[in-house]
Amino acid sequence: MKLAMIGLGRMGGNMAHRLVQHGHEVVAYDRDLAAVAEAAKNGATGVSSLTELPAQLPSPAIYWIMLPAGEITENVMREVGELARPGDIIVDGGNSFWKHDLARAAWLKERGLILIDVGVSGGVWGLDRGYCMMIGGDDAAVKHIDPILQALAPGLGDIPRTKRPSTESAWQAEMGYVHCGPAGSGHFVKMVHNGIEYGMMQAYAEGFDILKQRGKDDLPDNMRFDLNLSDISEVWRRGSVISSWLLDLIAIALANDQSLSKYSGRVADSGEGRWTIDAAIEEAVPVDVLAAALFARFRSRVEFSYADQLLSAMRHGFGGHVEMPQ
Amino acid sequence: MKLAMIGLGRMGGNMAHRLVQHGHEVVAYDRDLAAVAEAAKNGATGVSSLTELPAQLPSPAIYWIMLPAGEITENVMREVGELARPGDIIVDGGNSFWKHDLARAAWLKERGLILIDVGVSGGVWGLDRGYCMMIGGDDAAVKHIDPILQALAPGLGDIPRTKRPSTESAWQAEMGYVHCGPAGSGHFVKMVHNGIEYGMMQAYAEGFDILKQRGKDDLPDNMRFDLNLSDISEVWRRGSVISSWLLDLIAIALANDQSLSKYSGRVADSGEGRWTIDAAIEEAVPVDVLAAALFARFRSRVEFSYADQLLSAMRHGFGGHVEMPQ
Amino acid sequence: MKLAMIGLGRMGGNMAHRLVQHGHEVVAYDRDLAAVAEAAKNGATGVSSLTELPAQLPSPAIYWIMLPAGEITENVMREVGELARPGDIIVDGGNSFWKHDLARAAWLKERGLILIDVGVSGGVWGLDRGYCMMIGGDDAAVKHIDPILQALAPGLGDIPRTKRPSTESAWQAEMGYVHCGPAGSGHFVKMVHNGIEYGMMQAYAEGFDILKQRGKDDLPDNMRFDLNLSDISEVWRRGSVISSWLLDLIAIALANDQSLSKYSGRVADSGEGRWTIDAAIEEAVPVDVLAAALFARFRSRVEFSYADQLLSAMRHGFGGHVEMPQ
Amino acid sequence: MKLAMIGLGRMGGNMAHRLVQHGHEVVAYDRDLAAVAEAAKNGATGVSSLTELPAQLPSPAIYWIMLPAGEITENVMREVGELARPGDIIVDGGNSFWKHDLARAAWLKERGLILIDVGVSGGVWGLDRGYCMMIGGDDAAVKHIDPILQALAPGLGDIPRTKRPSTESAWQAEMGYVHCGPAGSGHFVKMVHNGIEYGMMQAYAEGFDILKQRGKDDLPDNMRFDLNLSDISEVWRRGSVISSWLLDLIAIALANDQSLSKYSGRVADSGEGRWTIDAAIEEAVPVDVLAAALFARFRSRVEFSYADQLLSAMRHGFGGHVEMPQ
Repeated sequence: MKLAMIGLGRMGGNMAHRLVQHGHEVVAYDRDLAAVAEAAKNGATGVSSLTELPAQLPSPAIYWIMLPAGEITENVMREVGELARPGDIIVDGGNSFWKHDLARAAWLKERGLILIDVGVSGGVWGLDRGYCMMIGGDDAAVKHIDPILQALAPGLGDIPRTKRPSTESAWQAEMGYVHCGPAGSGHFVKMVHNGIEYGMMQAYAEGFDILKQRGKDDLPDNMRFDLNLSDISEVWRRGSVISSWLLDLIAIALANDQSLSKYSGRVADSGEGRWTIDAAIEEAVPVDVLAAALFARFRSRVEFSYADQLLSAMRHGFGGHVEMPQ
Repeated sequence: MKLAMIGLGRMGGNMAHRLVQHGHEVVAYDRDLAAVAEAAKNGATGVSSLTELPAQLPSPAIYWIMLPAGEITENVMREVGELARPGDIIVDGGNSFWKHDLARAAWLKERGLILIDVGVSGGVWGLDRGYCMMIGGDDAAVKHIDPILQALAPGLGDIPRTKRPSTESAWQAEMGYVHCGPAGSGHFVKMVHNGIEYGMMQAYAEGFDILKQRGKDDLPDNMRFDLNLSDISEVWRRGSVISSWLLDLIAIALANDQSLSKYSGRVADSGEGRWTIDAAIEEAVPVDVLAAALFARFRSRVEFSYADQLLSAMRHGFGGHVEMPQ
Repeated sequence: MKLAMIGLGRMGGNMAHRLVQHGHEVVAYDRDLAAVAEAAKNGATGVSSLTELPAQLPSPAIYWIMLPAGEITENVMREVGELARPGDIIVDGGNSFWKHDLARAAWLKERGLILIDVGVSGGVWGLDRGYCMMIGGDDAAVKHIDPILQALAPGLGDIPRTKRPSTESAWQAEMGYVHCGPAGSGHFVKMVHNGIEYGMMQAYAEGFDILKQRGKDDLPDNMRFDLNLSDISEVWRRGSVISSWLLDLIAIALANDQSLSKYSGRVADSGEGRWTIDAAIEEAVPVDVLAAALFARFRSRVEFSYADQLLSAMRHGFGGHVEMPQ
Repeated sequence: MKLAMIGLGRMGGNMAHRLVQHGHEVVAYDRDLAAVAEAAKNGATGVSSLTELPAQLPSPAIYWIMLPAGEITENVMREVGELARPGDIIVDGGNSFWKHDLARAAWLKERGLILIDVGVSGGVWGLDRGYCMMIGGDDAAVKHIDPILQALAPGLGDIPRTKRPSTESAWQAEMGYVHCGPAGSGHFVKMVHNGIEYGMMQAYAEGFDILKQRGKDDLPDNMRFDLNLSDISEVWRRGSVISSWLLDLIAIALANDQSLSKYSGRVADSGEGRWTIDAAIEEAVPVDVLAAALFARFRSRVEFSYADQLLSAMRHGFGGHVEMPQ
């Protein structure tokens, strides 16, 4: 199939590359022309402006937008919406807020266009491993782009197969992509995926912190252990209940440097973690772990917090306590 | 009544003072002789060593130990246990771990001595306001020291009275002291008191932090408010659901300096908060708020955490994410 | 002054009553005519439809809407907005979402009308104790309704005064009301107030649960205490660090029945707790305690959760663990 | 090598079996003689009492105790300690509390015996997959039993190898076992492993709950999604950041029955989750996620909580709120 890939950063560039490797024709655009040149080197057809795209594409055209969520995706979506022809399909592969999809789908529908929202997991490893995809949108349109989804998906690989009834959706799921429901549902499921990711990461982080601090000098001698965290992470990868891909990454990081000294620990959060809490509150679902994981990231970016200062002020007020020295 | 007050710091010194004011005779000891002199100035009889105490006291003697929990209380308790006479009463008024009381009571009992554990709330304000006391120990012994407890307790004051059946324990409760049960139960109740205190303090701290950060520059103009936290704390003291003594203290602190600039926000924790979580886990009671309050204090004392560094390492691993600049 | 009070439920009815007691003229409306009759009995002028209001009021008219947040407030606001005259002031005294105020203020402004949002704390006790109020909106308009605010506010009472510089806002704060900033800021501050309230309530709830479960049969004899929670709550009201109005209410509840058997423990949440978390996330402020308090309420209303079922399924999967019997 | 396996339940029985399969000689004992017979069928030498063991074993003898943590392990350890000969090695492979190991190691040492504590992960799958092991104890003794550890460990398998310096401990880690440090350190590391497990499980549980409740009737139509959780779990196993062995188990469970109707959701906890929090508090490490995961299990086992009842009582007290109907 032929499609336009708009946005050739870490994600879009690799996805274009993988699509070409699987025999698809990619018309590649990015406002950074070096990225376009790189995509062309990998077999895509480069163009230097959005307006060149329609002429390059069959009807219905497929525009796959792979840009950071937010203003830039919104703007490019608008531009593409203006130049597309009725019946065309616009894919938002970024990490957009799923409620924005609802509004966008409605706006595009007024112009005869169809929105497909695709939540993509896979990061920098996707070129080789493939991309796990969660898809929302109109049935026929999602069916239409199926060959593209197949090419991007990781496929069966050597992962042990779960015994389950064989349906079309079950087969797609095994390939690594799932059509979740109407517009917005793809990003919704991807959002929850990231929410879980935050929680899992924090679980590991807290656990390794406990191991690390067990070597602290102020513990009694027989209760102090200087643990080899690299070996431990490696062991846990084998046959343990907590083996996972994240643990593989931890093992790689610790193999290099157990002190993690090149990281200061100011941890960003990228939207999905926040929206997950929002969705849970909307549904009245208790999410203590997912929320705590988000809050830990907030806290990691602040040296001193006003909350903590107020605690000190109260302690001074009722007990005359002087603060701990820095 | 006549009793020995051992330990004349912020708490013990004021308690000795208050007892004298209420007509009791206090024999005061502290290893800091300046504190003894101060107590003597306030009407107590000062002594310069523990061994002088027995001769000064009637039988059964009452030894009120008012020292920081831990080794020092343990040591002094041992010393007093050695020099006391059968039938004497030893009061531990510090913030001891309630399980230690169980062992101490057993050890003292072997020597014919009686332990009363008293959890005391009131801080530096107690001299004037009186001390709220939670008491554990043998019935007869607690009854014996009742006049002392009455003198230390805040009394009815002008607090609106709750309509309830009138019993002896109910009357004592209104005076501000309660005999909770056998040895250990006084410190147990005091411990939970402090656990609740941590949770309440953190609730205020988080709320005021939200108010404070609402003035941040990066918020949209119509969603940014520069709030007068001093006025707000003052208003909440009047007729609001969250009025409390802690809020009174917040109002005092904010009246001086809304920025709380003299506090760095490294918040100590003093044992009870930790033991409260331990007790809850022993009982399988979920205590998300009390635990989160404790953990916030732990976090306040660490500039960067290994947990956060590991989050950054994982993010780098799967997404090539570079850390946020400091 | 003369004003219209729209909505005569538990809150609005008492506020109308208090305003009459303080010499103001209240034109009272509710769609429940029995509530109107009750207000008339208390000295207000009753009317049986919104459309009668303008003729009864001087210019600029003051419409105080005291209805549950949500659709009904929105609808009545619209209706009043249609029948009001330019320059009139519309007060929203319900627990509206502060971001809705922003839209409403804009809509009203187009019609020459002014929105004042007032967050009110005080509940059923406000008639006697007065209402603590947090106010957002235009300076001149807020100044105009000042006599009404003074009448509703609790006033100085016998609460110890905080030493602070004397300004107009400081004086108002001591009376029990505060003009926080532009439209929306009143409800914003009230929202955080309720968020704190959730956290404090949960802190007490967890603490008393620990005390209660300490009497459980499965604990070792010397670690089991049958505590008198009524006495303990009463003691904590006197001189303790955690004394508060909420604790007064706890003492009242426990004086009647320590087992709280008439409550099943399905706890509602009314919006502000949720919005507080939303605001904190918007500001990247960690609010572990406030969020945990909200989630505990969610959990209280579900007998079994899908999350828990999935935990059981996983445990069965990796360990062959059979579930605990019910 | 030849060793005694004491305790032939789900874990011990399979471990004996695996050891025989790898060419070791196992003398098997359990107080349930049917389990002994089963082990004999699998190639072990069965005995019907502990006292028969010493005669069957070379010197130094290896006693591997594989029993539930707690009283039974304590008792059997004592018995074995009495009948063992100086220089013998006693392995505790159960989930014992690591601080108990410290006392046991000291007691055994007095008798010339050596304790090795082994934390084992692998559950019912270990017979095939092998057992991931965390080991504490004396260097020479751990070295002595190395062939046994190798046989039990999963081995390299087809797990991608982490690039890291090649040392002896690194090689063992890749085989799936790690000598963590002195006595107690094996169970310490296993305990943290389980703490992390609790956190990860809860992260998945909360995430899937959000997905599930998104189909609730009370959500607006365009914000309601009926999601196929089985397909979603399957997709996430492929190329996603949150793929893990636990997710594999979730996929298996959901393939059978998305409603998980055979689970009521009363979730047990087995000690390690609690001790992990205890260890973290000892080290002053904030563990919001691990603690919340534990508390969720506590909450899952209580229909109504006293804490929730008290919240209702407070709400009734200040707002006249009636409880939500059940």
